[in-house]
Amino acid sequence: MPGFINDPNLYVENGEGFALADFDTNYRGYLRKEQDAVEKLEADKLKLHDLQRILYAVDNHSVLLIFQAMDAAGKDSTIRHVFSGMFPQGGQVFSFKAPSRTELDHDYLWRTSLCLPERGRISIFNRSYYEEVLVTRVHPEYILGQRIPGIDQLSDIDEDFWQKRFRAIRDHERHLAENGTVILKFFLNVSKKEQKRRFLSRIDTPEKNWKFNFDDLNERAHWDAYQHAYEQAIRHTAAEHAPWYVIPADRKWFMRAAVCDIITSKLESLGLHYPTLSEQEQQKLELARKMLKDEL
Amino acid sequence: MPGFINDPNLYVENGEGFALADFDTNYRGYLRKEQDAVEKLEADKLKLHDLQRILYAVDNHSVLLIFQAMDAAGKDSTIRHVFSGMFPQGGQVFSFKAPSRTELDHDYLWRTSLCLPERGRISIFNRSYYEEVLVTRVHPEYILGQRIPGIDQLSDIDEDFWQKRFRAIRDHERHLAENGTVILKFFLNVSKKEQKRRFLSRIDTPEKNWKFNFDDLNERAHWDAYQHAYEQAIRHTAAEHAPWYVIPADRKWFMRAAVCDIITSKLESLGLHYPTLSEQEQQKLELARKMLKDEL
Repeated sequence: MPGFINDPNLYVENGEGFALADFDTNYRGYLRKEQDAVEKLEADKLKLHDLQRILYAVDNHSVLLIFQAMDAAGKDSTIRHVFSGMFPQGGQVFSFKAPSRTELDHDYLWRTSLCLPERGRISIFNRSYYEEVLVTRVHPEYILGQRIPGIDQLSDIDEDFWQKRFRAIRDHERHLAENGTVILKFFLNVSKKEQKRRFLSRIDTPEKNWKFNFDDLNERAHWDAYQHAYEQAIRHTAAEHAPWYVIPADRKWFMRAAVCDIITSKLESLGLHYPTLSEQEQQKLELARKMLKDEL
Repeated sequence: MPGFINDPNLYVENGEGFALADFDTNYRGYLRKEQDAVEKLEADKLKLHDLQRILYAVDNHSVLLIFQAMDAAGKDSTIRHVFSGMFPQGGQVFSFKAPSRTELDHDYLWRTSLCLPERGRISIFNRSYYEEVLVTRVHPEYILGQRIPGIDQLSDIDEDFWQKRFRAIRDHERHLAENGTVILKFFLNVSKKEQKRRFLSRIDTPEKNWKFNFDDLNERAHWDAYQHAYEQAIRHTAAEHAPWYVIPADRKWFMRAAVCDIITSKLESLGLHYPTLSEQEQQKLELARKMLKDEL
């Protein structure tokens, strides 16, 4: 079966002319029923576990996975489902919320830079430095709180300001890629209608009440501004070495299967194998075997 | 008296055609005698202390000072002399030696990124990410130890490899500058003859013996390769927002005075002042004064 890694219904490596409206939130490719997706996810998770152990053994690539989405699109549950079988030494999830005072004292790439993956490991970013061109674009007053010299009032936050941020993010990702980081970026693309349904379900179901935050409604009121911000971010930062995947998110079962398929396929494409020993190292192994056997 | 901040005998903001041979290691500008330099240094240090306190109070700019040099050029003693009166909360010296295993597990800008200055503070880098285009350029076998995918043998480390590193460093510094970091880079330019004199003095003077490392002679044997590496690094990374200063280092007294003069002048040029209160804040102060006085 064809996977989703290069499926033009999801994949964006060249952002020129990118428009969110061209991407169907309800697409499901060849996965016609939920059961097909669940079976595929389980099979891919086993593969992912093995690939992750090889990545760790080879110890030269690192992997950065970025998840961005509107509220209730399913970031947390997708990360939970895809990585629940994760080789625990091999990676870590980092969730980025409102920046702390210490983080605001640095440039906006600093706090995520601390969490970049070591060679052989996977960092999963639940939100990321992309918030710096998303939530801050919808609420530019947050930028003023960053105390950047020369950015003193809202009128200083112009198109040129955002273009500089896009350029800095592109530069950052290119540097990481050149130094061995595999980067995949997922935008979980939920429709406004489906978000409403999920919010209502959080309100109607007592055991989901804790997930509902009244502020989420305020952000929903900025839906179009967010869609514009995502569109701009994807348009200006998609690259072959750091592609965006616009994951149809109205069907959670499709979303999970597609995300796992893409990560698994990408790791497979690296062609990694457990390191093999040189003849000399092999001879040392044999010597070790002999010494152990000869022990009194 | 004119300072050294824009003195073309030291200052490089445009690296095109830069040649180290054009820079005199023995230049002393208008400071004809050691006593003049010592007096100037003491006066500038007092200014620097005050400026640093204002920088800390204003809390929007950060300052990154990079020191690079051949052995015995005087990095440590220059940092000691210039910053011995430093406002202690206002900054920190970070010395970067051979990278650790954890550091090698990351891209080469990671370990220094952790030490970037917070707003209001100064980070002094004693060596820096520039080692990644200096010592590694003279000893490219170190690069192989970084386990970068695709860089498997010495022939992979070609001119394109170095140009990518220069571009990544330029991108990094531009991003920092756009976000409020003032960057000054000092290459302490000692002559080969003066280095020999200082090495002999370290050998001949018992209380200086600890400073002498036999390996330093091995590096001295690569003098021309290092000069070429510095020349290339300066040529490709000098910028108005991140200039290089090629500091004549054969006279230590001149070097110290010039470095302090440049840092002080740069901080002065920011035009910072202690924050003043709005009328409303002023009224709150008056209220506080009254409440304290009225206490029983």
